[in-house]
Amino acid sequence: MRMRPIIAVDIGGTHVRAALYSEATDTPMSRAEIATHSQDADLFSRLCDLIEQVRVERALESIGVAAPGPLDPRSGTILRAPNIQEWIEFPLGSRLTERFGVSTYVDNDANLAALAEWRLGAGRGHSDVLYLTVGTGVGGGLILNGQLIHGSHGLAAEFGHMLIDPAGPQCSCGKHGHLESYASGTAIAAHVRRLLEEGATSSLQDMQEITSSAVAEAAQEGDELSRRALERAGHYLGIAISNCCMSFDPSVVILGGGVLGSGEILLQSIRRSVVAHVLHPRYLEGLEITRGTLGDDAGLLGALLLARAGGHDM
Amino acid sequence: MRMRPIIAVDIGGTHVRAALYSEATDTPMSRAEIATHSQDADLFSRLCDLIEQVRVERALESIGVAAPGPLDPRSGTILRAPNIQEWIEFPLGSRLTERFGVSTYVDNDANLAALAEWRLGAGRGHSDVLYLTVGTGVGGGLILNGQLIHGSHGLAAEFGHMLIDPAGPQCSCGKHGHLESYASGTAIAAHVRRLLEEGATSSLQDMQEITSSAVAEAAQEGDELSRRALERAGHYLGIAISNCCMSFDPSVVILGGGVLGSGEILLQSIRRSVVAHVLHPRYLEGLEITRGTLGDDAGLLGALLLARAGGHDM
Repeated sequence: MRMRPIIAVDIGGTHVRAALYSEATDTPMSRAEIATHSQDADLFSRLCDLIEQVRVERALESIGVAAPGPLDPRSGTILRAPNIQEWIEFPLGSRLTERFGVSTYVDNDANLAALAEWRLGAGRGHSDVLYLTVGTGVGGGLILNGQLIHGSHGLAAEFGHMLIDPAGPQCSCGKHGHLESYASGTAIAAHVRRLLEEGATSSLQDMQEITSSAVAEAAQEGDELSRRALERAGHYLGIAISNCCMSFDPSVVILGGGVLGSGEILLQSIRRSVVAHVLHPRYLEGLEITRGTLGDDAGLLGALLLARAGGHDM
Repeated sequence: MRMRPIIAVDIGGTHVRAALYSEATDTPMSRAEIATHSQDADLFSRLCDLIEQVRVERALESIGVAAPGPLDPRSGTILRAPNIQEWIEFPLGSRLTERFGVSTYVDNDANLAALAEWRLGAGRGHSDVLYLTVGTGVGGGLILNGQLIHGSHGLAAEFGHMLIDPAGPQCSCGKHGHLESYASGTAIAAHVRRLLEEGATSSLQDMQEITSSAVAEAAQEGDELSRRALERAGHYLGIAISNCCMSFDPSVVILGGGVLGSGEILLQSIRRSVVAHVLHPRYLEGLEITRGTLGDDAGLLGALLLARAGGHDM
């Protein structure tokens, strides 16, 4: 029996993407995206309009959603979405099921990007995969013994909130010294702004709005301050990855997200820091530390894989 | 067909225990122990003598060994034993197989204690278990989705070497700011000694050799300095446990080892610190943070379970 098409959705900090997939292929039959933030209407009703637009009146098999966490993947309820203030304890899965009359499967965007990179991308052939995505925030996904790890409440792999220095800067969550407070795009840009305010010199010093992309670009072009800012982020990412090596000993570390996109400086400093921090060189034997190969589509493809599987076996 | 008896061995920092078990029961038919540190002969030959003594001339089915890590559970090779300087890259499993002519299964003592507490002790009924043992050092074991986690090199769950403060004290491994450098029995005693040298007052100030047991006892009897030293260890253990909650979201945290043995002060400060550090209160719903119930026999019983299963399915 042929399955009807599946809608996959990825709700990101800046854009919401939706795509329609037939049973046979990972290439979408149609796709569209909207900005996450808008004054026009609430996000849920705009999301429903986007799904309507993409499904072009076809009967659906199911919907898979990659959503910002923390969330409960069993019930499809978002506990708190960092960039969507209206979604607190929001039952996204059941609201979509109600609206479209088909099963809806929801998981954390980083978990689903990890699933996609493992099945279709840089993690193929591995059983123990650490996935980190470095963008506005820092998210994570974890595959061990060939299973996506959710933990007892479905809240595993929130590596962005691993505490690595009690005296560290404040994190987006309000606590201090988390990985994200050093290594997210937001944190990298804030660090450079702070140094410039303190009088450091840099090719960025006359820029109005400093972003992590601008920092990465300047670093590639030889700006010393920008290079050191990326190396600082890489140093802390390496500490966190080394902590993960000691905790569950992956054979591949896959890095996704916009901040990893440009240049080799960040990736090389991550590798140096992991080598410097692991307990024993055996952890490094055969360990790959690499970029994801699916780019921005990782979350969307993970949502597709989740819906095709009829949800996680949890 | 009946199985022949199994020898279980637990190689600890101070004692090596061995016991003979029939197929039917977890109560040993015979058991004995020797001190780990002794000048009379090398540890391997004394271990063989101990096994000979315990097996009382019976034909064996197999041998299970809980050994100090890090080690390779696939090959039974100890990479580096913190308290046994002669065992570096030591092929313990194959040496015992050669000597006794039966299959020998070796795993990290904390992994096997975790396995035993999960199957027979405080973790029964759970699928996601974090085990920490706080003694001379800090060891760990991890069960996720109902499987003991080994990772790609068999080196997972070395939580004692999780970095939680880059500016922290030196660890037994030589690096800085690891959990073990704050929370092991050795670290607690060293911290109290340092405060006394700096002139702090305590009921311990005239004691010759301060141990973590003496600190725990003094704290129970109202010594303020000792109480604060335990609370400091609990604070850092809570940070590490909270990091583990965000990483893999266990439903039970089991604490073993001698340092947890006496009084409630340490356990209570651990609980407070976990509550203070987790990202979201959902992690705490139904979360048990409790002592192990198998005491000193956890490692031995884990070695028995390992041998009965004919090794891990890795």
